Amino acid sequence: MLDQLWSNLDQHFNDMIDIRRYLHMHPEISFQEVETAAFIKKYYQDLGIEIRENVGGNGLVAKIIGELPGPTVALRADFDALPIQDEKDVEYKSTVPGVMHACGHDGHTATLLVLAKVLNQHKNLLNGNVVLIHQHAEEYAPGGALSMINDGCLEGVNVIFGTHLWASEPVGKIQYRSGPIMAAADRFEIIVQGKGGHGAQPHKTKDAILIGSQIVTNLQQIVSRKVDPVSSAVVSVGSFVAENAFNIIANSAKLIGTVRTFDDAIRTQIEEDIENIIKGTCLMHNAEYEFDFFRGYPAVVNHHDETEFLRKHAAQVPGVYEVEETPLQMGGEDFAYYLQHVKGTFFFTGAKPAHSKDVYPHHHPKFDIDEKGMLIAAKTLCKATIQYQLDYCESHGLNLNK
Amino acid sequence: MLDQLWSNLDQHFNDMIDIRRYLHMHPEISFQEVETAAFIKKYYQDLGIEIRENVGGNGLVAKIIGELPGPTVALRADFDALPIQDEKDVEYKSTVPGVMHACGHDGHTATLLVLAKVLNQHKNLLNGNVVLIHQHAEEYAPGGALSMINDGCLEGVNVIFGTHLWASEPVGKIQYRSGPIMAAADRFEIIVQGKGGHGAQPHKTKDAILIGSQIVTNLQQIVSRKVDPVSSAVVSVGSFVAENAFNIIANSAKLIGTVRTFDDAIRTQIEEDIENIIKGTCLMHNAEYEFDFFRGYPAVVNHHDETEFLRKHAAQVPGVYEVEETPLQMGGEDFAYYLQHVKGTFFFTGAKPAHSKDVYPHHHPKFDIDEKGMLIAAKTLCKATIQYQLDYCESHGLNLNK
Amino acid sequence: MLDQLWSNLDQHFNDMIDIRRYLHMHPEISFQEVETAAFIKKYYQDLGIEIRENVGGNGLVAKIIGELPGPTVALRADFDALPIQDEKDVEYKSTVPGVMHACGHDGHTATLLVLAKVLNQHKNLLNGNVVLIHQHAEEYAPGGALSMINDGCLEGVNVIFGTHLWASEPVGKIQYRSGPIMAAADRFEIIVQGKGGHGAQPHKTKDAILIGSQIVTNLQQIVSRKVDPVSSAVVSVGSFVAENAFNIIANSAKLIGTVRTFDDAIRTQIEEDIENIIKGTCLMHNAEYEFDFFRGYPAVVNHHDETEFLRKHAAQVPGVYEVEETPLQMGGEDFAYYLQHVKGTFFFTGAKPAHSKDVYPHHHPKFDIDEKGMLIAAKTLCKATIQYQLDYCESHGLNLNK
Amino acid sequence: MLDQLWSNLDQHFNDMIDIRRYLHMHPEISFQEVETAAFIKKYYQDLGIEIRENVGGNGLVAKIIGELPGPTVALRADFDALPIQDEKDVEYKSTVPGVMHACGHDGHTATLLVLAKVLNQHKNLLNGNVVLIHQHAEEYAPGGALSMINDGCLEGVNVIFGTHLWASEPVGKIQYRSGPIMAAADRFEIIVQGKGGHGAQPHKTKDAILIGSQIVTNLQQIVSRKVDPVSSAVVSVGSFVAENAFNIIANSAKLIGTVRTFDDAIRTQIEEDIENIIKGTCLMHNAEYEFDFFRGYPAVVNHHDETEFLRKHAAQVPGVYEVEETPLQMGGEDFAYYLQHVKGTFFFTGAKPAHSKDVYPHHHPKFDIDEKGMLIAAKTLCKATIQYQLDYCESHGLNLNK
Repeated sequence: MLDQLWSNLDQHFNDMIDIRRYLHMHPEISFQEVETAAFIKKYYQDLGIEIRENVGGNGLVAKIIGELPGPTVALRADFDALPIQDEKDVEYKSTVPGVMHACGHDGHTATLLVLAKVLNQHKNLLNGNVVLIHQHAEEYAPGGALSMINDGCLEGVNVIFGTHLWASEPVGKIQYRSGPIMAAADRFEIIVQGKGGHGAQPHKTKDAILIGSQIVTNLQQIVSRKVDPVSSAVVSVGSFVAENAFNIIANSAKLIGTVRTFDDAIRTQIEEDIENIIKGTCLMHNAEYEFDFFRGYPAVVNHHDETEFLRKHAAQVPGVYEVEETPLQMGGEDFAYYLQHVKGTFFFTGAKPAHSKDVYPHHHPKFDIDEKGMLIAAKTLCKATIQYQLDYCESHGLNLNK
Repeated sequence: MLDQLWSNLDQHFNDMIDIRRYLHMHPEISFQEVETAAFIKKYYQDLGIEIRENVGGNGLVAKIIGELPGPTVALRADFDALPIQDEKDVEYKSTVPGVMHACGHDGHTATLLVLAKVLNQHKNLLNGNVVLIHQHAEEYAPGGALSMINDGCLEGVNVIFGTHLWASEPVGKIQYRSGPIMAAADRFEIIVQGKGGHGAQPHKTKDAILIGSQIVTNLQQIVSRKVDPVSSAVVSVGSFVAENAFNIIANSAKLIGTVRTFDDAIRTQIEEDIENIIKGTCLMHNAEYEFDFFRGYPAVVNHHDETEFLRKHAAQVPGVYEVEETPLQMGGEDFAYYLQHVKGTFFFTGAKPAHSKDVYPHHHPKFDIDEKGMLIAAKTLCKATIQYQLDYCESHGLNLNK
Repeated sequence: MLDQLWSNLDQHFNDMIDIRRYLHMHPEISFQEVETAAFIKKYYQDLGIEIRENVGGNGLVAKIIGELPGPTVALRADFDALPIQDEKDVEYKSTVPGVMHACGHDGHTATLLVLAKVLNQHKNLLNGNVVLIHQHAEEYAPGGALSMINDGCLEGVNVIFGTHLWASEPVGKIQYRSGPIMAAADRFEIIVQGKGGHGAQPHKTKDAILIGSQIVTNLQQIVSRKVDPVSSAVVSVGSFVAENAFNIIANSAKLIGTVRTFDDAIRTQIEEDIENIIKGTCLMHNAEYEFDFFRGYPAVVNHHDETEFLRKHAAQVPGVYEVEETPLQMGGEDFAYYLQHVKGTFFFTGAKPAHSKDVYPHHHPKFDIDEKGMLIAAKTLCKATIQYQLDYCESHGLNLNK
Repeated sequence: MLDQLWSNLDQHFNDMIDIRRYLHMHPEISFQEVETAAFIKKYYQDLGIEIRENVGGNGLVAKIIGELPGPTVALRADFDALPIQDEKDVEYKSTVPGVMHACGHDGHTATLLVLAKVLNQHKNLLNGNVVLIHQHAEEYAPGGALSMINDGCLEGVNVIFGTHLWASEPVGKIQYRSGPIMAAADRFEIIVQGKGGHGAQPHKTKDAILIGSQIVTNLQQIVSRKVDPVSSAVVSVGSFVAENAFNIIANSAKLIGTVRTFDDAIRTQIEEDIENIIKGTCLMHNAEYEFDFFRGYPAVVNHHDETEFLRKHAAQVPGVYEVEETPLQMGGEDFAYYLQHVKGTFFFTGAKPAHSKDVYPHHHPKFDIDEKGMLIAAKTLCKATIQYQLDYCESHGLNLNK
């Protein structure tokens, strides 16, 4: 059966490319993906597949009803773009000024649409259902995943798989990781409220620039001293603004930064540590402060058994020549939320352009992928779906269609 | 003779007020004082006093030729205004939007003009000449003093006296100080050139905000450790700008600040210390920097004997009830340059408004003076002039007109 | 064959305990283990096993010649003790004041001696040789491993296995880890050479305490900014000494600390970063410094295939109920050197005392092990040895004795 | 009359030298000056001058009753030595191992004894009394001045004069200063109570060395930001001790330092600022601390009129060629306490050895004075005494003996 599915996917590879390029030319930023959603809806309607729109926002959930009993496997693709000006010189360049699919979500969507079509053709052989989650707004917190979950997209789902096309790894490589794989990405803002005055009379002031500077310096001790060295965490201040004339002492300073963690206890501890550092530093100057900590997506924490499952079976997918453990990735992903509700795993599918001169990092104005990565992604998700259903039925004593 | 001069000054006090208020209503900012200069020129021409205009810019130098032999005494008044919106509710409020005599230079000019008139009336009794330096552009470096000196305003001058109407001290108080009295006020700019990157990948960056913060913190040690504790100095960073998104590590940061000193060796040492701190901090991060140090006016350093002379004789001026040593003033004044060329002293003449509700610091939008301070200033400068000439003639064996 | 070996080990468990307790009562600190070495030598001589003494110091290497062709497997046990006063209340308490087997090396030795005896009994069935490395001086750098290797202990060896009895994990658990498992543990010393003076005259000094303090503060940025957050590293200053009267400014300060890393490139980079930080900080004060970085043992880096082999087969050892990946361990081990020369793996064998009241960390004066851990260790090493020889012969087409 | 007194002093100069050298050879450290006190007592008894011993400890107070009415002038000399080994190569070298008059108090005492003798010879001409305060224990807080005052040494005194022989200024120079002249010298101790642990596990600790280092760094901001730049203050940490093995994180650290100020409000504010800095820094680490601030002598604050008086009349003393204002001295003196109770002034009398190779700072093992300074000191104190009494009588309408 798998051979036939893979063969079908091969046959539809050109469709996949066409869809991807169409989406690439018509990107929409997070929370504004109405045309993209309409495109997806029409695609499923044309195939006669059940599709629910406006799930938790612009999200859509399609469902292929397998004709044999078995578990429900969810596959997820995100479809929002970024507020970046496309600087590539290709035919399928973005037609929308200042908006671009610079992270490969166009490819994710194309992959999943074609895979859905192929699975749907074989639904008589499916040992269970397949839920296709087309998620909006992955790029911008609070993201689309949580609202889609709240709107029922995971109802009845036994397991979820998702992948990210990964432009830093070559086509043919799959990267997995059990446990934490992508970081929780939080944001914080600090306003130091000192007391301004004349630059020549520091004793009448509370120097907000000095206070802010000491906070930045002191924040270093969180990672160096407070976090278990075998865990990973980052605290970075990205913005420091206290703009004044040269002969002034600053009244206030604004600092903005990010925290990355993989462990919820460490995340909570760092939030407390930051505030303690601000509090202690301000106390030294008898100054005031405001501190806001905005939690972004939690860490993506893959389930062990499902990850092992993926690792083992990905190796058998045609075109996959290497399956390796990825290092921790400090970036964030709201796929994290799905894994807090159902078992599953998130993995990376190599899609690095063939010529090194074409390789740019995700979110770069010249970012692009090798579209052959989409085919590998589709086959790997396909394999995971079919195999999971088989294994499940076997372990649960259901009749199997092999 | 002095009694007669003082009596004449009293009689002309209303003229002084009129002139001051006229100037107050028609302020001009530094280097653009053409109407004010024309006003001064006409005043002297009407009196038949020799006047040279366009001295080193908009400056003017008038000269009263005493009919008896003796030394030449220079008196200086500055006449530029500030780019501040007048917020006072008085009849003589500035008529020029955004420009205001918020430092009392209008009063300085009125004082000197009337004093010149009175001295001129008695030139047959003057034991020497009096040079009246009307200086433009005191408020904005490089100032007018240096160019006026270069244009000869001090030629033949034996001694110079100058005063500042001082709104923080009551009318009737004169403040003197031998040696340094007002600070050298310098400006510096630092650009930290790090290497930007993603907030989650600090190891690929050189964090310009951290580097800048460490520089600010380390600068504290200059005053705390490098400067003789019995000397005075200030190093303040007034502006720190590195504005970025929260999840970025800053590529660069710009810091601007001021240095105040009273001693040239310390001034030079601090400039070196700042660069050493920047260099050392950048070295720790393998980062680059730009550092510019812009010297403002040097410290005003009063000559000892002339200050003692002023201290002693000011006490005998009618209306002066207290002559005290002023603490060091951290502000700057380009009177400093005159004192590098001829002997003399600069002092403060109390001009605090009678009602405390009207007292605002210099450069404040509601700044004002008690105009009676002008009369005290005129009499003190008058006394200094006449007495200096007398003492000089006596010690030089010249015939005296007592 | 394995069943028989395991059964023999079970039969000799009491001998193992006796040997371990004898050694426990007669500990010798690193590089002074002459009696222990003599004990080991006699043990092998009594068995008629070839033994070479004084290998790279007090080390010994015994060799069991298998009667069938095959690879040579090395097993290593260390036998030095620590300069710690035994505070346990047991019959086998150390008889040597201030010296104690507080890290389980007595158990390692007992395990290996008994295993050697049993393997020797079955040498007619061995598909290759077994080299038994009894290493002195693991506890104190430069350690015994390097000199033993230089003295030929690994000659002809195909693979090496070693284990550490681990008092924090229960008996029956084996912990493995591919790649880095234990840290490189380095030491550094910094002497800040400032310029002393009177506490009231900082401007005549270079304050070594301030310089040292800034170095300590600045060192935090290495882990927080310079090291890839997904790698592990520690930089700690353990000692800061600048002892003077209260009214003095310190002439010099001495700082001593440690660095822990798992990656050689990071280790080298941190050494450079530390010196850069010292250099930059001293430059700010125009002070001098001395910096010495003493490399301890490198990280223990397990070979991937041999670790997978161990992981797989350890699970089949009787008494082993769990085989799990260990987190990175920040402690050091000179087993690292063996793995730089031959393939192999180092693993942890649970030996936590049954009652929690008896559980103390390694190097604690009350440290002890559950001796049943020794039996598990022996069986696991036995299994690794026999299986490795079988696999090797199979893959190399040698005749096998199964 | 003064000419006669000065002539008598000249005649007794050799006695002065003999006494000074005797005391120099027999130094006694603070609070243990029993033999020196006995020497002084006998001296006065031999002269028939009233002397009270054990005043507030080892102090003595002699009194010369002038035969004419007038005010009582107190003169003070201290007589304790230092725990320093004399390293000079002179005949009058200290005979007491480890104890030395390294600050000139021997000279102060010799000066006052001989002056007392001469004044006593002329008591029939004295317009009032002279109180001779021989104070013990100036070198070691809490000092002898306060207990002598509490024991009545200033009863009936109208004014006090004191001088310090000053080895950095040449013989013939007198240095005065109105207002603050010598600093308040306080001591503080900080114990940082962190939580110790293994150097490789910072997250389980509170790193007392890092906390202490941050405190030292943060203390710099007191002088740089919190103290009026035209005031003088010093905060120095002289001792930092946290001695441990290299692979430890420090459990605690001890810091000791000094604060110097001239203004009581600043002194109090700095004590608060230090504690705030400690508190804030510890709060950042959730650590504990102990902080003790020990007030030493307050600043020596000379009275204005008495200082002007001294300045004026010192210039008329034979041998005095220059009277100048001294810069602020950061050292302390318990003469401060006398000036809190009665009017007076403390001044410096030049006593620099003639050959520069012999010039060593006070408290140096090779410290010495030019004894001719003693004669100048005696004459200046004599002049101040006689003149003060004259002026006082004149202004109070008393009959005068001129």
